[in-house]
Amino acid sequence: MNNPSGYPRPKDRYPSKDQLIMGLHALNELLRHAPNRILKVYTSIRDGKERKMGILRECEKWEIPVAFISENELSNICGSDSHQSFAAHVKGRKFYDSKEFLKSVEDREEALVLFCDQILDPQNFGALLRCAECFGVDGVAWSKNRGSDLTPISTKTSCGASEWLPLIRVSNLAEGVSQFQEAGFEVVAAALKEGSKNALHFHFSKKTVLVVGSEGEGIQPLILKRADHIVHIPMFGKIESLNVAQAATSLLTCFRKN
Amino acid sequence: MNNPSGYPRPKDRYPSKDQLIMGLHALNELLRHAPNRILKVYTSIRDGKERKMGILRECEKWEIPVAFISENELSNICGSDSHQSFAAHVKGRKFYDSKEFLKSVEDREEALVLFCDQILDPQNFGALLRCAECFGVDGVAWSKNRGSDLTPISTKTSCGASEWLPLIRVSNLAEGVSQFQEAGFEVVAAALKEGSKNALHFHFSKKTVLVVGSEGEGIQPLILKRADHIVHIPMFGKIESLNVAQAATSLLTCFRKN
Repeated sequence: MNNPSGYPRPKDRYPSKDQLIMGLHALNELLRHAPNRILKVYTSIRDGKERKMGILRECEKWEIPVAFISENELSNICGSDSHQSFAAHVKGRKFYDSKEFLKSVEDREEALVLFCDQILDPQNFGALLRCAECFGVDGVAWSKNRGSDLTPISTKTSCGASEWLPLIRVSNLAEGVSQFQEAGFEVVAAALKEGSKNALHFHFSKKTVLVVGSEGEGIQPLILKRADHIVHIPMFGKIESLNVAQAATSLLTCFRKN
Repeated sequence: MNNPSGYPRPKDRYPSKDQLIMGLHALNELLRHAPNRILKVYTSIRDGKERKMGILRECEKWEIPVAFISENELSNICGSDSHQSFAAHVKGRKFYDSKEFLKSVEDREEALVLFCDQILDPQNFGALLRCAECFGVDGVAWSKNRGSDLTPISTKTSCGASEWLPLIRVSNLAEGVSQFQEAGFEVVAAALKEGSKNALHFHFSKKTVLVVGSEGEGIQPLILKRADHIVHIPMFGKIESLNVAQAATSLLTCFRKN
């Protein structure tokens, strides 16, 4: 591979995509709350606007190594060119399985968990993580076999949420539904179906699993069948549905306004 | 300009960007609800998957002319390559000014209007239009001098909302605030400020203007000063704020759950 930019190349190999975050906002949030999670920063910036230089000063303050690489190389390691000239290698995240997570919240009287089913678009997945974190969700679960996994695009859109949220990565989300139900959670799936309840008037239980699905695919039939309740957000206009992250935001607002 | 694709070139000139919508979802919504708004469809697809071919059949049904152009040309006229191989020239939209709009709702007991202040990102602007339409907002106002105007990217993200919503394009949004107040609207601005009220417990009045601003810039000081109320969505985690379209979705949910 040639290196037309002339920037020095880092000597080590690049981390895998699921250990990378990218984007100014995500990196700033991490520097603010958990700089010790950052192993190394990759940037194509040597001088520039205050906001970007501020990041480099923060890295120096926290003694985080910085590798200066070309814009193209950055796009290559991120698999995307929307990195805003910054990426960071972060410490391996802890992924829970359902049992471990349920153990961690078993003494709690209240708990709210978001299940993401078949979210194919990493940007939507990141936006879901962001709104989940903002509304104080206790964990987000998804199946690594159905839909997007953590990618630099999802970490960027999540604005740091991928780093603070307890993440429950399972192989079978429908099985997760049953396990959470056995542990006393009520499972509420969001879908517009005959007989589904109006989310604006729905009373959520203190231990709730909220399930959302992608716009195209929706929630898999087995999960809909197992869910304790199916709710929908009433649409007041002509458009059929909100974007999935907007829908989750609306439902989480309903939960908090219970 | 060369035409390497060999597709026949349309004889007329292309419409300006603010008369274009792009993307499968937006075009589908328009075909479903207002095919007579579509003057012409541009596509780079001649055969392909059912969903795309279905659009061409719909165009035939409604006798909408279709121009087959190259993928590159489509990106050129849209100013973006995320057109999903489809764009459409739509009839000029009606833009209201504040007075005209207020006249149109003066007999109504209830009305909800969204003011978008300094929304720079066309994708956020489109997402705002989408959630506004879904929650039955009666009009969306923005200043053409501060922030994004309608672009193919915003129409795509709006999923058709840019075509059904009454659009109020003004030169000075702060002036609009005063005009709506004089007409009996209560103006509620979303910002995290000392003394701002918790949106989850806020009681909205029947005639409400909701003002949202971009994440970076926020709402301009003059509008914050004139607003009747300032509300914030409480954040339960570490992230400072929701994305602006998520924030609007949360506030609109609060309004509808009043």
